[in-house]
Amino acid sequence: MSRIAYVNGRYVPHADAAVHVEDRGYQFADGVYEVVLVYDGAMVDELPHLDRLDRSLGELRIAQPMTRPALRSVMRELLRRNRIRTGLIYMQVTRGVARRDHPFPKNAEPALVMTAKRIALPAAAAIENGVKVISIRDIRWERCDIKTVALLPNVLGKQQAREAGAHEAWQVDDAGCVTEGTSTNAWIVTKDGELITRSANQSILNGITRLSLLRLAEQEGLRFVERSFTLEEAKQAREAFISSATAFVTPVTQIDDAVIGNGKAGSVGLGLRRAYLDYAAGAGRTA
Amino acid sequence: MSRIAYVNGRYVPHADAAVHVEDRGYQFADGVYEVVLVYDGAMVDELPHLDRLDRSLGELRIAQPMTRPALRSVMRELLRRNRIRTGLIYMQVTRGVARRDHPFPKNAEPALVMTAKRIALPAAAAIENGVKVISIRDIRWERCDIKTVALLPNVLGKQQAREAGAHEAWQVDDAGCVTEGTSTNAWIVTKDGELITRSANQSILNGITRLSLLRLAEQEGLRFVERSFTLEEAKQAREAFISSATAFVTPVTQIDDAVIGNGKAGSVGLGLRRAYLDYAAGAGRTA
Repeated sequence: MSRIAYVNGRYVPHADAAVHVEDRGYQFADGVYEVVLVYDGAMVDELPHLDRLDRSLGELRIAQPMTRPALRSVMRELLRRNRIRTGLIYMQVTRGVARRDHPFPKNAEPALVMTAKRIALPAAAAIENGVKVISIRDIRWERCDIKTVALLPNVLGKQQAREAGAHEAWQVDDAGCVTEGTSTNAWIVTKDGELITRSANQSILNGITRLSLLRLAEQEGLRFVERSFTLEEAKQAREAFISSATAFVTPVTQIDDAVIGNGKAGSVGLGLRRAYLDYAAGAGRTA
Repeated sequence: MSRIAYVNGRYVPHADAAVHVEDRGYQFADGVYEVVLVYDGAMVDELPHLDRLDRSLGELRIAQPMTRPALRSVMRELLRRNRIRTGLIYMQVTRGVARRDHPFPKNAEPALVMTAKRIALPAAAAIENGVKVISIRDIRWERCDIKTVALLPNVLGKQQAREAGAHEAWQVDDAGCVTEGTSTNAWIVTKDGELITRSANQSILNGITRLSLLRLAEQEGLRFVERSFTLEEAKQAREAFISSATAFVTPVTQIDDAVIGNGKAGSVGLGLRRAYLDYAAGAGRTA
Protein backbone atom coordinates (compact mmCIF):
# COMPACT_ATOMS: atom_id res chain seq x y z
CA MET A 1 0.00 0.00 0.00
CA SER A 2 1.45 3.36 -0.94
CA ARG A 3 1.58 6.33 1.42
CA ILE A 4 -1.10 8.96 1.08
CA ALA A 5 -0.65 12.64 1.89
CA TYR A 6 -3.15 15.44 2.29
CA VAL A 7 -2.40 18.62 0.33
CA ASN A 8 -4.77 21.57 0.30
CA GLY A 9 -8.02 19.67 0.13
CA ARG A 10 -6.92 16.52 -1.67
CA TYR A 11 -5.65 13.11 -0.63
CA VAL A 12 -2.84 12.24 -3.03
CA PRO A 13 -0.15 9.57 -3.33
CA HIS A 14 2.78 10.71 -1.21
CA ALA A 15 5.04 10.83 -4.27
CA ASP A 16 2.69 13.37 -5.90
CA ALA A 17 2.33 15.59 -2.85
CA ALA A 18 3.47 18.97 -4.13
CA VAL A 19 3.12 22.66 -3.39
CA HIS A 20 3.68 25.65 -5.62
CA VAL A 21 7.20 27.09 -5.66
CA GLU A 22 5.71 30.41 -4.52
CA ASP A 23 4.13 28.86 -1.45
CA ARG A 24 5.54 31.15 1.21
CA GLY A 25 6.68 28.16 3.19
CA TYR A 26 9.19 27.45 0.43
CA GLN A 27 10.46 30.96 -0.22
CA PHE A 28 10.18 32.58 3.23
CA ALA A 29 9.83 29.82 5.87
CA ASP A 30 6.53 31.58 6.48
CA GLY A 31 4.73 28.71 8.15
CA VAL A 32 4.33 26.55 11.22
CA TYR A 33 4.01 22.86 11.93
CA GLU A 34 3.14 20.19 14.46
CA VAL A 35 4.13 16.55 14.86
CA VAL A 36 1.57 14.37 16.65
CA LEU A 37 2.36 10.94 18.01
CA VAL A 38 0.03 8.08 17.09
CA TYR A 39 0.34 5.33 19.64
CA ASP A 40 -1.48 2.05 19.38
CA GLY A 41 -4.09 3.49 17.06
CA ALA A 42 -4.83 6.73 18.86
CA MET A 43 -3.42 10.23 18.88
CA VAL A 44 -1.55 11.41 21.95
CA ASP A 45 -1.96 14.95 23.28
CA GLU A 46 -3.90 15.80 20.15
CA LEU A 47 -5.73 18.79 21.57
CA PRO A 48 -2.67 20.42 23.16
CA HIS A 49 -0.90 20.07 19.80
CA LEU A 50 -3.81 21.73 18.03
CA ASP A 51 -3.90 24.45 20.68
CA ARG A 52 -0.22 25.12 20.08
CA LEU A 53 -0.78 25.15 16.32
CA ASP A 54 -3.43 27.82 16.86
CA ARG A 55 -1.02 29.79 19.01
CA SER A 56 1.77 29.57 16.40
CA LEU A 57 -0.63 30.69 13.68
CA GLY A 58 -1.83 33.52 15.88
CA GLU A 59 1.71 34.73 16.55
CA LEU A 60 2.35 34.91 12.81
CA ARG A 61 -1.18 36.11 12.04
CA ILE A 62 -1.79 33.27 9.60
CA ALA A 63 -5.47 32.37 9.36
CA GLN A 64 -6.54 28.88 10.34
CA PRO A 65 -6.81 26.73 7.23
CA MET A 66 -9.98 25.00 8.44
CA THR A 67 -12.08 24.50 11.55
CA ARG A 68 -10.75 22.27 14.27
CA PRO A 69 -13.35 19.52 13.68
CA ALA A 70 -12.43 19.50 9.99
CA LEU A 71 -8.72 19.34 10.83
CA ARG A 72 -9.28 16.45 13.23
CA SER A 73 -11.29 14.69 10.59
CA VAL A 74 -8.43 14.99 8.07
CA MET A 75 -6.00 13.62 10.66
CA ARG A 76 -8.18 10.57 11.18
CA GLU A 77 -8.79 9.99 7.50
CA LEU A 78 -5.05 10.20 6.84
CA LEU A 79 -4.35 7.59 9.53
CA ARG A 80 -7.05 5.36 8.11
CA ARG A 81 -5.78 5.63 4.55
CA ASN A 82 -2.22 4.93 5.67
CA ARG A 83 -3.27 2.16 8.09
CA ILE A 84 -1.11 3.54 10.85
CA ARG A 85 -1.26 2.17 14.40
CA THR A 86 1.97 3.63 15.71
CA GLY A 87 3.55 6.54 13.92
CA LEU A 88 3.49 10.26 13.39
CA ILE A 89 1.27 12.83 11.81
CA TYR A 90 3.15 15.82 10.42
CA MET A 91 1.10 18.90 9.60
CA GLN A 92 2.31 22.17 8.18
CA VAL A 93 0.38 25.37 7.65
CA THR A 94 1.86 28.22 5.63
CA ARG A 95 0.65 31.65 4.65
CA GLY A 96 -0.12 30.29 1.21
CA VAL A 97 0.86 31.05 -2.36
CA ALA A 98 1.56 34.59 -3.51
CA ARG A 99 3.85 36.47 -5.88
CA ARG A 100 7.15 36.76 -4.03
CA ASP A 101 7.29 39.83 -1.80
CA HIS A 102 8.20 39.99 1.89
CA PRO A 103 5.06 41.56 3.45
CA PHE A 104 1.98 39.47 4.13
CA PRO A 105 0.08 39.02 0.87
CA LYS A 106 -3.44 40.40 0.74
CA ASN A 107 -5.30 37.50 -0.81
CA ALA A 108 -3.39 34.32 -0.04
CA GLU A 109 -5.23 31.38 1.45
CA PRO A 110 -3.37 29.46 4.15
CA ALA A 111 -2.00 26.18 2.84
CA LEU A 112 -2.31 22.91 4.75
CA VAL A 113 -0.16 19.86 4.13
CA MET A 114 -0.37 16.71 6.20
CA THR A 115 1.68 13.53 5.99
CA ALA A 116 1.75 10.39 8.11
CA LYS A 117 4.29 7.67 8.63
CA ARG A 118 4.84 4.61 10.76
CA ILE A 119 7.59 4.56 13.33
CA ALA A 120 9.11 1.76 15.38
CA LEU A 121 9.74 2.33 19.06
CA PRO A 122 13.36 1.87 20.18
CA ALA A 123 14.35 -1.36 21.89
CA ALA A 124 14.58 -1.41 25.69
CA ALA A 125 18.34 -1.99 25.52
CA ALA A 126 18.87 1.20 23.50
CA ILE A 127 16.90 3.15 26.07
CA GLU A 128 18.94 1.63 28.91
CA ASN A 129 22.21 2.76 27.31
CA GLY A 130 20.95 6.24 26.65
CA VAL A 131 22.27 8.63 24.06
CA LYS A 132 25.09 11.12 23.79
CA VAL A 133 24.52 14.82 23.30
CA ILE A 134 27.00 17.51 22.42
CA SER A 135 26.80 21.18 23.33
CA ILE A 136 26.72 23.92 20.72
CA ARG A 137 26.12 27.65 20.84
CA ASP A 138 22.50 28.66 20.45
CA ILE A 139 22.57 30.88 17.36
CA ARG A 140 18.83 30.91 16.67
CA TRP A 141 16.44 33.83 16.48
CA GLU A 142 14.66 35.22 19.49
CA ARG A 143 11.23 33.66 18.93
CA CYS A 144 11.97 29.98 19.44
CA ASP A 145 8.62 29.73 21.23
CA ILE A 146 6.87 29.73 17.83
CA LYS A 147 6.98 26.34 16.11
CA THR A 148 7.96 27.62 12.67
CA VAL A 149 9.49 25.80 9.73
CA ALA A 150 12.49 28.17 9.85
CA LEU A 151 14.46 25.19 11.14
CA LEU A 152 17.78 25.68 9.39
CA PRO A 153 19.78 26.34 12.60
CA ASN A 154 18.24 23.21 14.09
CA VAL A 155 19.23 21.23 10.99
CA LEU A 156 22.81 22.46 11.24
CA GLY A 157 22.95 21.66 14.95
CA LYS A 158 21.55 18.18 14.51
CA GLN A 159 23.99 17.47 11.70
CA GLN A 160 26.86 18.64 13.90
CA ALA A 161 25.67 16.20 16.56
CA ARG A 162 25.51 13.32 14.12
CA GLU A 163 29.01 14.03 12.84
CA ALA A 164 30.24 13.97 16.43
CA GLY A 165 28.65 10.56 16.89
CA ALA A 166 25.92 12.06 19.06
CA HIS A 167 22.16 11.84 19.00
CA GLU A 168 21.32 15.45 19.78
CA ALA A 169 22.91 18.86 20.34
CA TRP A 170 22.05 20.96 23.37
CA GLN A 171 22.11 24.62 22.55
CA VAL A 172 23.76 26.93 25.05
CA ASP A 173 22.90 30.61 25.43
CA ASP A 174 25.25 33.53 26.13
CA ALA A 175 24.83 32.99 29.88
CA GLY A 176 26.15 29.45 29.56
CA CYS A 177 22.71 27.91 30.14
CA VAL A 178 21.21 25.12 28.09
CA THR A 179 18.15 26.28 26.15
CA GLU A 180 17.03 23.05 24.46
CA GLY A 181 17.99 20.40 21.94
CA THR A 182 17.53 20.94 18.22
CA SER A 183 14.26 18.98 18.24
CA THR A 184 13.81 18.09 21.91
CA ASN A 185 13.57 19.73 25.32
CA ALA A 186 16.41 19.21 27.81
CA TRP A 187 16.10 17.90 31.39
CA ILE A 188 18.45 17.07 34.22
CA VAL A 189 18.15 15.52 37.66
CA THR A 190 20.49 17.03 40.24
CA LYS A 191 22.59 15.00 42.67
CA ASP A 192 20.00 15.64 45.36
CA GLY A 193 17.22 14.33 43.15
CA GLU A 194 15.55 17.45 41.87
CA LEU A 195 14.18 17.38 38.31
CA ILE A 196 14.97 20.52 36.32
CA THR A 197 13.94 21.83 32.93
CA ARG A 198 14.17 25.34 31.60
CA SER A 199 11.07 27.46 32.04
CA ALA A 200 9.25 28.21 28.82
CA ASN A 201 9.81 31.70 27.47
CA GLN A 202 10.73 32.95 24.00
CA SER A 203 14.05 31.08 24.06
CA ILE A 204 12.57 27.58 23.82
CA LEU A 205 9.65 25.75 22.34
CA ASN A 206 7.17 24.82 25.03
CA GLY A 207 7.06 21.12 24.20
CA ILE A 208 3.71 19.38 24.46
CA THR A 209 5.51 16.30 25.78
CA ARG A 210 7.43 18.60 28.14
CA LEU A 211 4.12 19.83 29.57
CA SER A 212 2.74 16.31 29.90
CA LEU A 213 5.92 15.22 31.69
CA LEU A 214 5.62 18.12 34.13
CA ARG A 215 2.07 17.03 34.94
CA LEU A 216 3.18 13.41 35.30
CA ALA A 217 6.10 14.47 37.53
CA GLU A 218 3.63 16.24 39.76
CA GLN A 219 1.32 13.23 39.86
CA GLU A 220 4.26 10.99 40.75
CA GLY A 221 5.24 13.30 43.57
CA LEU A 222 8.63 14.16 42.10
CA ARG A 223 10.44 17.28 43.23
CA PHE A 224 10.86 19.49 40.17
CA VAL A 225 11.52 23.07 39.22
CA GLU A 226 11.40 24.99 35.96
CA ARG A 227 14.57 27.05 35.78
CA SER A 228 17.63 27.58 33.64
CA PHE A 229 20.64 25.33 34.23
CA THR A 230 24.18 25.71 32.98
CA LEU A 231 25.98 23.25 30.79
CA GLU A 232 28.40 22.63 33.66
CA GLU A 233 25.53 21.84 36.02
CA ALA A 234 24.20 19.38 33.43
CA LYS A 235 27.56 17.64 33.18
CA GLN A 236 27.57 17.20 36.97
CA ALA A 237 23.96 15.96 37.05
CA ARG A 238 22.92 12.56 38.29
CA GLU A 239 20.69 12.07 35.29
CA ALA A 240 19.78 13.81 32.06
CA PHE A 241 17.22 13.18 29.37
CA ILE A 242 15.49 14.70 26.36
CA SER A 243 11.80 14.82 25.53
CA SER A 244 9.66 15.28 22.44
CA ALA A 245 6.57 13.79 20.85
CA THR A 246 8.81 11.25 19.11
CA ALA A 247 11.57 10.79 21.73
CA PHE A 248 9.08 10.57 24.65
CA VAL A 249 11.77 10.45 27.34
CA THR A 250 15.16 9.40 26.00
CA PRO A 251 17.91 9.12 28.62
CA VAL A 252 21.14 11.03 28.04
CA THR A 253 24.23 9.28 29.37
CA GLN A 254 26.94 11.51 27.95
CA ILE A 255 27.22 15.28 27.42
CA ASP A 256 30.30 16.19 25.39
CA ASP A 257 33.03 14.21 27.18
CA ALA A 258 31.22 13.96 30.51
CA VAL A 259 29.58 10.67 31.43
CA ILE A 260 26.32 11.30 33.25
CA GLY A 261 25.68 9.33 36.44
CA ASN A 262 26.96 5.79 36.01
CA GLY A 263 26.63 5.92 32.22
CA LYS A 264 23.30 4.11 32.19
CA ALA A 265 19.76 5.46 32.08
CA GLY A 266 18.71 6.92 35.43
CA SER A 267 15.69 5.93 37.47
CA VAL A 268 13.84 9.25 37.32
CA GLY A 269 14.00 9.38 33.53
CA LEU A 270 13.04 5.74 33.15
CA GLY A 271 10.16 6.21 35.56
CA LEU A 272 8.90 9.21 33.60
CA ARG A 273 9.25 7.30 30.35
CA ARG A 274 7.06 4.50 31.73
CA ALA A 275 4.58 7.01 33.09
CA TYR A 276 4.46 8.76 29.70
CA LEU A 277 3.88 5.52 27.80
CA ASP A 278 1.08 4.64 30.25
CA TYR A 279 -0.34 8.08 29.66
CA ALA A 280 0.00 7.69 25.87
CA ALA A 281 -1.91 4.40 26.11
CA GLY A 282 -4.54 5.88 28.44
CA ALA A 283 -5.41 9.36 29.56
CA GLY A 284 -3.48 11.11 26.77
CA ARG A 285 -5.34 9.35 23.95
CA THR A 286 -8.01 10.63 21.64
CA ALA A 287 -9.51 8.04 19.34
CA MET B 1 2.14 34.98 -22.99
CA SER B 2 2.18 33.04 -19.76
CA ARG B 3 5.10 33.03 -17.34
CA ILE B 4 7.48 30.10 -17.47
CA ALA B 5 9.44 28.75 -14.52
CA TYR B 6 12.33 26.33 -14.32
CA VAL B 7 11.91 23.48 -11.82
CA ASN B 8 14.48 20.73 -11.45
CA GLY B 9 15.31 20.26 -15.10
CA ARG B 10 12.03 21.31 -16.71
CA TYR B 11 10.58 24.52 -18.05
CA VAL B 12 6.95 24.61 -16.93
CA PRO B 13 4.10 27.13 -16.90
CA HIS B 14 4.51 29.23 -13.78
CA ALA B 15 1.15 28.03 -12.44
CA ASP B 16 2.39 24.43 -12.56
CA ALA B 17 5.76 25.11 -10.91
CA ALA B 18 5.70 22.80 -7.91
CA VAL B 19 8.05 21.04 -5.54
CA HIS B 20 7.48 18.03 -3.33
CA VAL B 21 6.16 18.74 0.18
CA GLU B 22 9.24 16.96 1.54
CA ASP B 23 11.61 19.28 -0.29
CA ARG B 24 13.75 20.44 2.62
CA GLY B 25 13.21 24.03 1.59
CA TYR B 26 9.57 23.63 2.56
CA GLN B 27 9.95 21.73 5.81
CA PHE B 28 13.28 23.05 7.14
CA ALA B 29 14.13 26.30 5.29
CA ASP B 30 17.15 24.27 4.23
CA GLY B 31 18.07 26.27 1.16
CA VAL B 32 19.51 29.46 -0.26
CA TYR B 33 18.57 31.93 -2.96
CA GLU B 34 19.66 34.81 -5.13
CA VAL B 35 17.81 37.61 -6.89
CA VAL B 36 19.51 38.95 -10.00
CA LEU B 37 18.54 42.21 -11.67
CA VAL B 38 17.90 42.17 -15.40
CA TYR B 39 18.33 45.65 -16.80
CA ASP B 40 17.69 46.53 -20.40
CA GLY B 41 18.09 42.95 -21.54
CA ALA B 42 21.22 42.03 -19.60
CA MET B 43 22.01 40.66 -16.18
CA VAL B 44 23.68 42.92 -13.66
CA ASP B 45 26.42 41.65 -11.36
CA GLU B 46 25.61 38.14 -12.50
CA LEU B 47 28.95 36.60 -11.58
CA PRO B 48 29.14 38.13 -8.09
CA HIS B 49 25.61 36.78 -7.46
CA LEU B 50 26.67 33.33 -8.60
CA ASP B 51 29.81 33.56 -6.46
CA ARG B 52 27.68 34.40 -3.45
CA LEU B 53 25.31 31.52 -4.27
CA ASP B 54 28.32 29.20 -4.24
CA ARG B 55 29.40 30.63 -0.90
CA SER B 56 25.93 30.17 0.62
CA LEU B 57 25.79 26.59 -0.65
CA GLY B 58 29.26 25.98 0.73
CA GLU B 59 28.35 27.31 4.17
CA LEU B 60 25.40 24.90 4.31
CA ARG B 61 27.31 22.12 2.54
CA ILE B 62 24.66 21.80 -0.16
CA ALA B 63 26.08 20.52 -3.43
CA GLN B 64 25.84 22.72 -6.49
CA PRO B 65 22.82 21.67 -8.54
CA MET B 66 24.66 22.09 -11.86
CA THR B 67 27.79 23.62 -13.33
CA ARG B 68 28.01 27.37 -13.62
CA PRO B 69 27.80 27.37 -17.43
CA ALA B 70 24.66 25.23 -17.22
CA LEU B 71 23.17 27.55 -14.60
CA ARG B 72 23.91 30.62 -16.70
CA SER B 73 22.35 28.91 -19.67
CA VAL B 74 19.13 28.25 -17.71
CA MET B 75 19.04 31.90 -16.63
CA ARG B 76 19.26 33.05 -20.22
CA GLU B 77 16.72 30.55 -21.47
CA LEU B 78 14.30 31.64 -18.75
CA LEU B 79 14.66 35.28 -19.74
CA ARG B 80 14.16 34.38 -23.38
CA ARG B 81 11.05 32.33 -22.70
CA ASN B 82 9.60 35.08 -20.52
CA ARG B 83 10.67 37.88 -22.91
CA ILE B 84 12.08 39.95 -20.09
CA ARG B 85 14.05 43.13 -20.74
CA THR B 86 13.89 44.61 -17.27
CA GLY B 87 13.03 42.41 -14.35
CA LEU B 88 14.33 39.89 -11.86
CA ILE B 89 15.56 36.35 -11.86
CA TYR B 90 14.85 34.51 -8.62
CA MET B 91 16.74 31.29 -8.05
CA GLN B 92 16.51 28.96 -5.09
CA VAL B 93 18.59 25.91 -4.31
CA THR B 94 17.59 23.54 -1.52
CA ARG B 95 19.09 20.37 -0.11
CA GLY B 96 16.45 18.42 -2.01
CA VAL B 97 13.71 15.94 -1.21
CA ALA B 98 14.07 13.44 1.61
CA ARG B 99 11.97 11.73 4.25
CA ARG B 100 11.61 14.32 7.01
CA ASP B 101 14.49 14.15 9.51
CA HIS B 102 16.68 17.01 10.69
CA PRO B 103 20.19 15.83 9.72
CA PHE B 104 21.44 16.12 6.17
CA PRO B 105 19.95 13.27 4.13
CA LYS B 106 22.39 10.83 2.56
CA ASN B 107 21.02 10.63 -0.95
CA ALA B 108 19.14 13.81 -1.69
CA GLU B 109 19.90 15.73 -4.87
CA PRO B 110 19.95 19.51 -4.56
CA ALA B 111 16.82 21.08 -6.00
CA LEU B 112 16.91 24.14 -8.26
CA VAL B 113 13.95 26.39 -8.91
CA MET B 114 14.15 29.54 -11.00
CA THR B 115 11.48 32.11 -11.78
CA ALA B 116 11.57 35.40 -13.64
CA LYS B 117 9.35 38.44 -13.66
CA ARG B 118 9.22 41.91 -15.12
CA ILE B 119 9.54 44.93 -12.91
CA ALA B 120 8.93 48.61 -13.51
CA LEU B 121 11.47 51.12 -12.24
CA PRO B 122 10.09 53.74 -9.85
CA ALA B 123 9.36 57.23 -11.18
CA ALA B 124 11.94 59.96 -10.60
CA ALA B 125 9.50 61.85 -8.35
CA ALA B 126 9.17 58.86 -6.00
CA ILE B 127 12.93 58.65 -5.75
CA GLU B 128 13.18 62.37 -5.02
CA ASN B 129 10.73 62.06 -2.11
CA GLY B 130 12.51 59.07 -0.66
CA VAL B 131 10.98 56.49 1.62
CA LYS B 132 10.33 56.13 5.32
CA VAL B 133 11.95 53.43 7.42
CA ILE B 134 11.13 52.36 10.94
CA SER B 135 13.51 50.84 13.45
CA ILE B 136 12.90 47.42 14.97
CA ARG B 137 14.95 45.10 17.15
CA ASP B 138 17.10 42.66 15.23
CA ILE B 139 15.84 39.28 16.45
CA ARG B 140 17.39 37.14 13.74
CA TRP B 141 19.85 34.28 14.03
CA GLU B 142 23.59 34.77 14.06
CA ARG B 143 24.37 33.78 10.48
CA CYS B 144 22.71 36.55 8.53
CA ASP B 145 25.69 36.45 6.18
CA ILE B 146 24.22 33.34 4.54
CA LYS B 147 21.45 34.13 2.06
CA THR B 148 19.03 31.45 3.24
CA VAL B 149 15.29 31.12 2.73
CA ALA B 150 14.80 31.18 6.52
CA LEU B 151 13.33 34.64 6.02
CA LEU B 152 10.49 34.61 8.52
CA PRO B 153 11.98 37.34 10.77
CA ASN B 154 12.49 39.50 7.68
CA VAL B 155 8.87 38.92 6.65
CA LEU B 156 7.63 39.97 10.08
CA GLY B 157 9.85 43.05 10.07
CA LYS B 158 8.78 44.12 6.60
CA GLN B 159 5.13 43.65 7.51
CA GLN B 160 5.66 45.77 10.64
CA ALA B 161 7.11 48.48 8.41
CA ARG B 162 4.18 48.38 6.02
CA GLU B 163 1.68 48.62 8.86
CA ALA B 164 3.55 51.68 10.11
CA GLY B 165 3.23 53.26 6.67
CA ALA B 166 6.93 52.69 6.02
CA HIS B 167 8.84 51.11 3.18
CA GLU B 168 11.44 49.21 5.17
CA ALA B 169 12.47 48.36 8.72
CA TRP B 170 16.02 48.89 9.92
CA GLN B 171 17.02 46.25 12.40
CA VAL B 172 18.93 47.38 15.47
CA ASP B 173 21.28 45.16 17.45
CA ASP B 174 21.80 45.01 21.23
CA ALA B 175 24.47 47.72 20.99
CA GLY B 176 21.96 50.11 19.44
CA CYS B 177 23.57 49.86 16.00
CA VAL B 178 21.70 49.39 12.75
CA THR B 179 22.49 46.03 11.16
CA GLU B 180 20.48 46.22 7.93
CA GLY B 181 16.98 46.40 6.48
CA THR B 182 14.82 43.31 6.08
CA SER B 183 15.76 43.02 2.40
CA THR B 184 18.22 45.88 1.89
CA ASN B 185 21.52 47.19 3.26
CA ALA B 186 21.51 50.47 5.22
CA TRP B 187 23.66 53.53 4.51
CA ILE B 188 24.02 57.02 5.93
CA VAL B 189 25.96 60.15 5.04
CA THR B 190 27.18 62.12 8.05
CA LYS B 191 26.89 65.87 8.42
CA ASP B 192 30.51 66.22 7.33
CA GLY B 193 29.87 64.21 4.18
CA GLU B 194 31.24 60.78 5.02
CA LEU B 195 29.40 57.78 3.57
CA ILE B 196 28.94 54.95 6.09
CA THR B 197 27.66 51.41 5.86
CA ARG B 198 28.12 48.59 8.31
CA SER B 199 31.07 46.30 7.63
CA ALA B 200 30.10 42.84 6.47
CA ASN B 201 30.36 40.16 9.12
CA GLN B 202 27.93 37.46 10.24
CA SER B 203 25.34 40.03 11.31
CA ILE B 204 24.44 41.21 7.81
CA LEU B 205 24.17 39.95 4.29
CA ASN B 206 27.04 41.24 2.19
CA GLY B 207 24.86 42.72 -0.55
CA ILE B 208 26.11 42.45 -4.11
CA THR B 209 24.71 45.90 -4.80
CA ARG B 210 26.36 47.06 -1.57
CA LEU B 211 29.73 45.88 -2.91
CA SER B 212 29.18 47.53 -6.28
CA LEU B 213 28.24 50.78 -4.56
CA LEU B 214 31.41 50.68 -2.49
CA ARG B 215 33.46 50.31 -5.66
CA LEU B 216 31.52 53.11 -7.35
CA ALA B 217 31.97 55.33 -4.28
CA GLU B 218 35.69 54.77 -4.54
CA GLN B 219 35.70 55.53 -8.26
CA GLU B 220 33.76 58.72 -7.62
CA GLY B 221 36.24 59.78 -4.99
CA LEU B 222 33.70 59.78 -2.15
CA ARG B 223 34.91 59.57 1.43
CA PHE B 224 33.47 56.39 2.89
CA VAL B 225 34.00 53.96 5.74
CA GLU B 226 32.59 50.57 6.60
CA ARG B 227 31.65 50.69 10.27
CA SER B 228 28.68 50.24 12.56
CA PHE B 229 26.49 53.27 13.21
CA THR B 230 23.83 53.75 15.85
CA LEU B 231 20.19 54.44 15.17
CA GLU B 232 20.66 57.85 16.79
CA GLU B 233 23.55 58.64 14.48
CA ALA B 234 21.36 57.69 11.53
CA LYS B 235 18.58 60.00 12.69
CA GLN B 236 21.09 62.87 12.83
CA ALA B 237 22.55 62.05 9.41
CA ARG B 238 22.51 64.40 6.47
CA GLU B 239 21.36 61.59 4.18
CA ALA B 240 20.33 57.99 4.37
CA PHE B 241 19.52 55.35 1.80
CA ILE B 242 18.99 51.64 1.26
CA SER B 243 20.46 49.35 -1.37
CA SER B 244 19.63 46.03 -2.95
CA ALA B 245 19.52 44.40 -6.36
CA THR B 246 15.95 45.63 -6.72
CA ALA B 247 16.12 48.92 -4.77
CA PHE B 248 19.46 49.98 -6.37
CA VAL B 249 19.86 53.08 -4.21
CA THR B 250 16.58 54.27 -2.68
CA PRO B 251 16.83 57.45 -0.61
CA VAL B 252 15.50 57.38 2.95
CA THR B 253 13.98 60.67 4.09
CA GLN B 254 12.47 59.61 7.40
CA ILE B 255 13.61 57.22 10.14
CA ASP B 256 10.88 56.66 12.73
CA ASP B 257 9.79 60.22 13.51
CA ALA B 258 13.05 61.87 12.45
CA VAL B 259 13.14 63.66 9.11
CA ILE B 260 16.51 63.13 7.41
CA GLY B 261 18.26 66.16 5.97
CA ASN B 262 15.69 68.45 4.38
CA GLY B 263 13.22 65.63 3.81
CA LYS B 264 14.21 65.16 0.18
CA ALA B 265 16.67 62.75 -1.43
CA GLY B 266 20.27 63.76 -0.76
CA SER B 267 22.94 64.40 -3.36
CA VAL B 268 25.31 61.60 -2.40
CA GLY B 269 22.57 58.97 -2.64
CA LEU B 270 21.21 60.36 -5.89
CA GLY B 271 24.71 60.49 -7.33
CA LEU B 272 25.33 56.87 -6.38
CA ARG B 273 21.98 55.86 -7.83
CA ARG B 274 22.90 57.44 -11.16
CA ALA B 275 26.34 55.86 -11.03
CA TYR B 276 24.78 52.48 -10.31
CA LEU B 277 22.31 52.74 -13.19
CA ASP B 278 25.18 53.69 -15.50
CA TYR B 279 27.06 50.69 -14.18
CA ALA B 280 24.00 48.46 -14.69
CA ALA B 281 23.76 49.65 -18.26
CA GLY B 282 27.49 49.26 -18.86
CA ALA B 283 30.32 47.65 -16.94
CA GLY B 284 28.03 45.59 -14.69
CA ARG B 285 26.27 43.81 -17.56
CA THR B 286 26.64 40.31 -18.84
CA ALA B 287 24.69 39.54 -21.97
